[in-house]
Amino acid sequence: MRKTFHVAIVGATGAVGLEIIRVLERRRFPISKLTLLASSRSVGRFLQFENQTLKVQELNEKAFEDVDFALFSANGEISLRYAKMAVQSGAIVIDNSSAFRADPEVPLVIPEINGTDVREHRGIIANPNCTTAITLMGLYPLHRAFGVRRVFASSYQAVSGSGAQAIQELEQQVRCLGKGEEVTRRVYPHQIAFNVIPHVDAFLESGYTKEEMKMQNEGRRIMHLPQFRASVTCVRVPVYRAHSIAVSAEFEKLVSLDIARSALLKAPGIRLLEDAALYPVPLDVEGKDICEVGRLRLDCALDNGLAFWVCGDQLLKGAALNAVQIAELLI
Amino acid sequence: MRKTFHVAIVGATGAVGLEIIRVLERRRFPISKLTLLASSRSVGRFLQFENQTLKVQELNEKAFEDVDFALFSANGEISLRYAKMAVQSGAIVIDNSSAFRADPEVPLVIPEINGTDVREHRGIIANPNCTTAITLMGLYPLHRAFGVRRVFASSYQAVSGSGAQAIQELEQQVRCLGKGEEVTRRVYPHQIAFNVIPHVDAFLESGYTKEEMKMQNEGRRIMHLPQFRASVTCVRVPVYRAHSIAVSAEFEKLVSLDIARSALLKAPGIRLLEDAALYPVPLDVEGKDICEVGRLRLDCALDNGLAFWVCGDQLLKGAALNAVQIAELLI
Repeated sequence: MRKTFHVAIVGATGAVGLEIIRVLERRRFPISKLTLLASSRSVGRFLQFENQTLKVQELNEKAFEDVDFALFSANGEISLRYAKMAVQSGAIVIDNSSAFRADPEVPLVIPEINGTDVREHRGIIANPNCTTAITLMGLYPLHRAFGVRRVFASSYQAVSGSGAQAIQELEQQVRCLGKGEEVTRRVYPHQIAFNVIPHVDAFLESGYTKEEMKMQNEGRRIMHLPQFRASVTCVRVPVYRAHSIAVSAEFEKLVSLDIARSALLKAPGIRLLEDAALYPVPLDVEGKDICEVGRLRLDCALDNGLAFWVCGDQLLKGAALNAVQIAELLI
Repeated sequence: MRKTFHVAIVGATGAVGLEIIRVLERRRFPISKLTLLASSRSVGRFLQFENQTLKVQELNEKAFEDVDFALFSANGEISLRYAKMAVQSGAIVIDNSSAFRADPEVPLVIPEINGTDVREHRGIIANPNCTTAITLMGLYPLHRAFGVRRVFASSYQAVSGSGAQAIQELEQQVRCLGKGEEVTRRVYPHQIAFNVIPHVDAFLESGYTKEEMKMQNEGRRIMHLPQFRASVTCVRVPVYRAHSIAVSAEFEKLVSLDIARSALLKAPGIRLLEDAALYPVPLDVEGKDICEVGRLRLDCALDNGLAFWVCGDQLLKGAALNAVQIAELLI
């Protein structure tokens, strides 16, 4: 008989949590029991999983008894507070927050890239930042072919990355503007409808945001490339679900478009749109597991570079899917 | 008595043409007569200029009699067909299209940067591409301080850059989606509402679009810098009026943030938002003549570089304002 597992989702009612439930269903993850955990505000809500109706339970120190996999999709504070408790209860934690991503004892994993790193885990495995994960899905096959040195990237990030409230904020602002009413905002410091905001996560002393430095910091760990450099501008755009990233990448070895194309065509988890005019757009990758790469070209400002454009569903490869893929590596 | 001029606007009913009328009013351009020209479709429409109601007239070979300045804001084909006729009639043409921007006999001018180049004109002066103009407003002061070598840039371009029809297309798509109706499109190859499209202007053999190469091609001419390199990804976003550009720039000389800030603070036509958290957003620069620069920081992937973010009203500094400023240089 196939082994089955008790899975818990922390933050089950959030944008990522809800998506994890769908991904577990869709991928037929071998589940004996699914426990949905959330803050007291959401306790008692009912959610569907396969043909069961499950009641959301309160996250507390006893919540992880008998749990095999605890998928955390709340925030860093919650992860810092409860992840170690879950490990002590015997669970393996897969954490979507940034709380443990820099911890050398915690593997940071994209299964298609450094899946074997999960072996090093001591109870916690970190899921990378969404923009980093989607970018690396396009970059890593090129790195394998040519050895990446540095990238210049700009993101076009969907509001789903800021959670369910941000999705509602965009919807509501568009409705208000349509009726000629005053726009209100809670999640973003500026109106997001019909605007773009070059500000994702907190500002650092350097003038970069935390989000922007994740590509370099997490990219170094995931690609095992301590010298990797990434200058990024992260921008929130009025798109609901999928992130897009424009990338210029410089390589060690001489690049060729033919080799680049064949590296991308063979790579798992992505689809290369080879014809220049058939570039991906975020609306077309919503709900898709794979990331789509297009606009591949020799970079005209680098002697040895490639430019490309990559789109991926932020809630899937950027979060829920990658977390479930990590759990799959462990079973 | 102050000299006054007969000004004609070609494409007066378009998004840029209408803006030129407002800019001429606002800047009190010394006008003796304003002639509004358009294709037969718009002939007979009435437009306001100061306290006059002017009838739109047909663009034809006789339309430029006695005209001092002909401001072209139609398309490249119209410019190629009528600009030389206008010059033969004695007018100076200021052309907003890309028709003459690469012509060595036609100065390509941003008044704050290479205003003195207008002296070389032989009847036609070209107005630069909007994204290029807005980017160079931020880049040029830094170039003067440190000598720019190359840039990596990604744009967030408003729909107004595709004309009045594109503005309507975004409005209409948002309305349709709000009512749960099917979205239609005419101007863009994909839905623009709640989406971004990495495709502005036609694709070239190299995989770049024409729009993307304008920054390098036009930047070289405007900055008198034949070795300047620019790798750009141009992306249309669901914003109505103002463009934004994320830039990483590499320089010859050692950069310093203090010198960069003081260069930007002194530069004409721009406003530097020094505090990292007070970055500009496109919605805030709508209707403003100045471009706003923010997110200035030492570039972490360049040994000698700066990253910044610049926003400008695409219809103003990106088109109408710059054209009228060129005319002002000539009077």
